[in-house]
Amino acid sequence: MTDTETAVQPFTADDYAARMRRAAEQATAAGLDGLVVMPGPELVWLTGYRPTAITERLTALVLRPGHDPVLVVPALEQPDAEGAPGAAAVELEAWTDGQDPFARAGTLLGATATMGISDSAWAMHLLGLQAAVPGSRYRSLTDSLPMLRAVKDDAELARLQSAAAAADATYEQVVGLRFAGRKETDVAADLARLLREHGHEQVDFTVVGSGPNGANPHHEAGDRTIETGDAIVLDFGGLKHGYGSDTSRTVSVGDPSAQLREVHEVVRAAQQAGVEAVRPGVACQDVDRAARRVITEAGYGERFIHRTGHGIGTTTHEPPYMIEGEEQPLVEGMCFSVEPGVYLPGVLGVRIEDIVTVTADGGRRLNVTDRALHVVE
Amino acid sequence: MTDTETAVQPFTADDYAARMRRAAEQATAAGLDGLVVMPGPELVWLTGYRPTAITERLTALVLRPGHDPVLVVPALEQPDAEGAPGAAAVELEAWTDGQDPFARAGTLLGATATMGISDSAWAMHLLGLQAAVPGSRYRSLTDSLPMLRAVKDDAELARLQSAAAAADATYEQVVGLRFAGRKETDVAADLARLLREHGHEQVDFTVVGSGPNGANPHHEAGDRTIETGDAIVLDFGGLKHGYGSDTSRTVSVGDPSAQLREVHEVVRAAQQAGVEAVRPGVACQDVDRAARRVITEAGYGERFIHRTGHGIGTTTHEPPYMIEGEEQPLVEGMCFSVEPGVYLPGVLGVRIEDIVTVTADGGRRLNVTDRALHVVE
Repeated sequence: MTDTETAVQPFTADDYAARMRRAAEQATAAGLDGLVVMPGPELVWLTGYRPTAITERLTALVLRPGHDPVLVVPALEQPDAEGAPGAAAVELEAWTDGQDPFARAGTLLGATATMGISDSAWAMHLLGLQAAVPGSRYRSLTDSLPMLRAVKDDAELARLQSAAAAADATYEQVVGLRFAGRKETDVAADLARLLREHGHEQVDFTVVGSGPNGANPHHEAGDRTIETGDAIVLDFGGLKHGYGSDTSRTVSVGDPSAQLREVHEVVRAAQQAGVEAVRPGVACQDVDRAARRVITEAGYGERFIHRTGHGIGTTTHEPPYMIEGEEQPLVEGMCFSVEPGVYLPGVLGVRIEDIVTVTADGGRRLNVTDRALHVVE
Repeated sequence: MTDTETAVQPFTADDYAARMRRAAEQATAAGLDGLVVMPGPELVWLTGYRPTAITERLTALVLRPGHDPVLVVPALEQPDAEGAPGAAAVELEAWTDGQDPFARAGTLLGATATMGISDSAWAMHLLGLQAAVPGSRYRSLTDSLPMLRAVKDDAELARLQSAAAAADATYEQVVGLRFAGRKETDVAADLARLLREHGHEQVDFTVVGSGPNGANPHHEAGDRTIETGDAIVLDFGGLKHGYGSDTSRTVSVGDPSAQLREVHEVVRAAQQAGVEAVRPGVACQDVDRAARRVITEAGYGERFIHRTGHGIGTTTHEPPYMIEGEEQPLVEGMCFSVEPGVYLPGVLGVRIEDIVTVTADGGRRLNVTDRALHVVE
């Protein structure tokens, strides 16, 4: 079993302060005067603060180089914000019902500031800021600072490792269960249960693509009854200690056909080539190209219909993306999936996916279960 | 038992078309050139479409008086959108990765259009539209059309009635369970289980405020062990058939103190006065005033620290709000909570809440369980 749980230490206020400093520096480098961060994954990453609910009441972290970070919060939620692990690293400014929170936040911006703003900030909040500071300009945080959260520190890496180990343990247990005669949704429920048993607090997806359903990479799990002879794409993940898991294996129910054996071997080799391409300084698109070349040379290039990978951290999909056209160089500490696939419409699909981290020596897999074609019952 | 399930018929494309026409008319009346509606409760209400995930890929319903409604969707999600119950009432425009969805949506707006936009639309999407159509202006949908979804039609009312009956059945069962010696979170879990057993697909809140915790109206449920002599505020709800429930009762564990009896009777009378104030044409604030007057006259005015009620529909909190300053007149078909409370810090809280609908003859409660002070074990 691979569930070798790494001890996970809580993040400290210093960890959060360092992230906020880094974010402010990156904002300057990107030509921004600062950042406005609303509830969501960026706020959690920067402050550890996750409001109970995201509502019409404005909560906004304002970061400006040379100033202390300020977190504007509704007075009702001030006690919650004070309890956040990064609270000591921010100045809290509470506003009460009846006050204008946009005027309040607006005084923190320059009259003609250009700010990065969370992608998923509410439009009504952006409109409020635009009205309060008519000369202010805004750019989406992902457009302007795509790599803000991409490089993981050791404490984050320990969490991703723990999540990956839980996903590996889930895989090793699920292949011991019965597949033939059960519905995809039954196996999906097993995956969700096992992920939770291995410490996930949130399950985000449990793909079970049996037979022809495996050929649709957007298929999740349906009513189809699994039959002997099916290939099954399993792709599952969620959050553990706040960090994501995401792994895929393709198994055979009973003896695999010659076609499945062949396609599986191509995808396995492509995934290996993708992982081997990983090292600091290499462009993201070169990871995609390395995996794709193997599939194309085997004659299945038209059947590999998605990018090779995506970053992972406090969310299960985030930059960097391993895709043609992405010239971002890999940096030590980045973590992302390498997940090539081949999809034969109406017949079967095969995908193999590990989370990989960039080390000085090259790519290191966080998922380490066997990638050979496993036969289940 | 009150779980007299009303037959719930699916909404038809005609229902959705009528809502979209009404929304376009209201937009004109509010001085808008149209509406841009992003995934969320408004899109569900207008089209029945609820994307599997809300992502960076633009999905937007554009409503303009005199034009057919257009739903801009990512090509990957077109099959899902086509399956929405209101799909026949909209023109679908799919865009593929690599195309500019903002330019696409922008061609549907006039160069200087003023549009209402969903409150919770993503900032990156608003920024995309502002860049694609620099002369366009936007106002938050709730600011500009606060009563868009406030008046419920018969099919919606049937759903709210069904959700209320399920909440009532939950209350009637929970009071038969043991309270003393168990934790608040145990009772909260019972409430969630019962709501689901009575048909809720989503549980939004299960407040169990025991003893002094009941005095904090924002308390949910914690580790406190319930003791004989406690007052317990129970406030729970969620969604059934896509429509909300929300009800509160306050119970006594063992014989109630004289103080609890007195406060409970004041709140019961205030809630009755609030419900009796409901009729078409009365301002929302008059419902608040009617309930508040009873509490103030009993000497507890300073201890009633929140508004008297909120609307309910596809969300559990929405306009209209029963609050001082809200002059919106009540209209037949509006549905909202009437939920006065009294909170004695460090001692206890009492809240009584029913969902009420406006009829030609006055307010009609959808929750009908007994409001007397119930003694539990």
